[in-house]
Amino acid sequence: MNVFIVHAHNEPQSFCTAMLHRMVQRFQAQGHEVHVSDLYAMQFNPVASAADFQARSNPDYLVYALEQRNADKTGTLAPDIAAEVAKLKACDLLVLNFPLYWFSLPAILKGWIDRVFLSGVVYGGRNFYDRGLLKGKKALLTFSLGGREHMFGPGSIHGDLNAMLKPVLQGSLGYAGMQVLEPFAAYHVPYITHEARVEVLEALDACVDGLETRAVLPKPSLDDFDPQMNPINS
Amino acid sequence: MNVFIVHAHNEPQSFCTAMLHRMVQRFQAQGHEVHVSDLYAMQFNPVASAADFQARSNPDYLVYALEQRNADKTGTLAPDIAAEVAKLKACDLLVLNFPLYWFSLPAILKGWIDRVFLSGVVYGGRNFYDRGLLKGKKALLTFSLGGREHMFGPGSIHGDLNAMLKPVLQGSLGYAGMQVLEPFAAYHVPYITHEARVEVLEALDACVDGLETRAVLPKPSLDDFDPQMNPINS
Repeated sequence: MNVFIVHAHNEPQSFCTAMLHRMVQRFQAQGHEVHVSDLYAMQFNPVASAADFQARSNPDYLVYALEQRNADKTGTLAPDIAAEVAKLKACDLLVLNFPLYWFSLPAILKGWIDRVFLSGVVYGGRNFYDRGLLKGKKALLTFSLGGREHMFGPGSIHGDLNAMLKPVLQGSLGYAGMQVLEPFAAYHVPYITHEARVEVLEALDACVDGLETRAVLPKPSLDDFDPQMNPINS
Repeated sequence: MNVFIVHAHNEPQSFCTAMLHRMVQRFQAQGHEVHVSDLYAMQFNPVASAADFQARSNPDYLVYALEQRNADKTGTLAPDIAAEVAKLKACDLLVLNFPLYWFSLPAILKGWIDRVFLSGVVYGGRNFYDRGLLKGKKALLTFSLGGREHMFGPGSIHGDLNAMLKPVLQGSLGYAGMQVLEPFAAYHVPYITHEARVEVLEALDACVDGLETRAVLPKPSLDDFDPQMNPINS
């Protein structure tokens, strides 16, 4: 398997970074090819802007998604984006590894999606959800957070964790057609003991070992909707 | 009222930018004081990093939230963050105006939250949700999107729009204690006629005029949870 891990933590000594290294080792030990984009180390620019296109189909008015299509076709994407797109296309499994910021992705990683998940390559027209253009690839979120496990789920203070992650799980990875696996959450990381952290890394090993049978999250099927995306009531 | 609008669109001629100008005019016509942070025009840096602190409580290991607290207390926040925090503190209503990217905020705006919503100022300890430190302020999302209204809601292709926005509505603005108003969504913007766009701007005027009676979204109350955030079953 070709595994592409996109990592986004601003402290190289963090537990989240330890999770990255642990996954790299485990995947490699299993004979997988692993590529890592360490966004902070790369000083990755997360801001989607006109500067992302070396030539424009419409220089007078920026429609970002249209320029993504044009630039991909004409080979005029900014080189930093093109490099990430190549890694994304080549992978069988995409892993996003990050600390949860405000119940979602740190901006540097959100911007990786904004800029790299190209219109025409990742989705387009009626090619989304189960017809998304990244169909056949798997995706996994692995993240650290301050909250405890009992703060999520039915009746809890924050509610269901996957519901909070819906714009990423369904709205981005699922929208692109990927098989989205049940996320791996490392709870309460800033406050736990060394021993507890060791256990989390062992659980992460088990997650890597068990990817083939890990639960896949449901996503909408376009078969249930007409071309205008009205539900088909059979 | 002191109104603070944070705007994030990469095309100054966009409809989303027209929404900004329309709101500024309408609020000012009503005698409100309006401040705007145009993140693209400011070339706002959305990446939370060590560079955000002119001095560090722990120079050897970055814990971003702890350094936010320290830098706020010691006046050593990066000046671009301090300026935004001052505007946030002074406002009665915060408006985030943006194009929906991947069912969430564009990275430049997500990073505004990551960097400006300071630990110790916006939330901290058990001060979140109905005890969040921005209690008393209102918040409103106004955004443009490509999708149509019938693509959201029960039984629709994407599901409920506010559910997709939960990490922002509940997990960020609500977490901070703000009264979160029902969002204003401008659907299908890239595809609609001039006349339809005029109608959307008129609806936006009505939204501004009706803020006092606009629906407030529910958020969890800490009264329903014990200090360990386990639900109190009365």
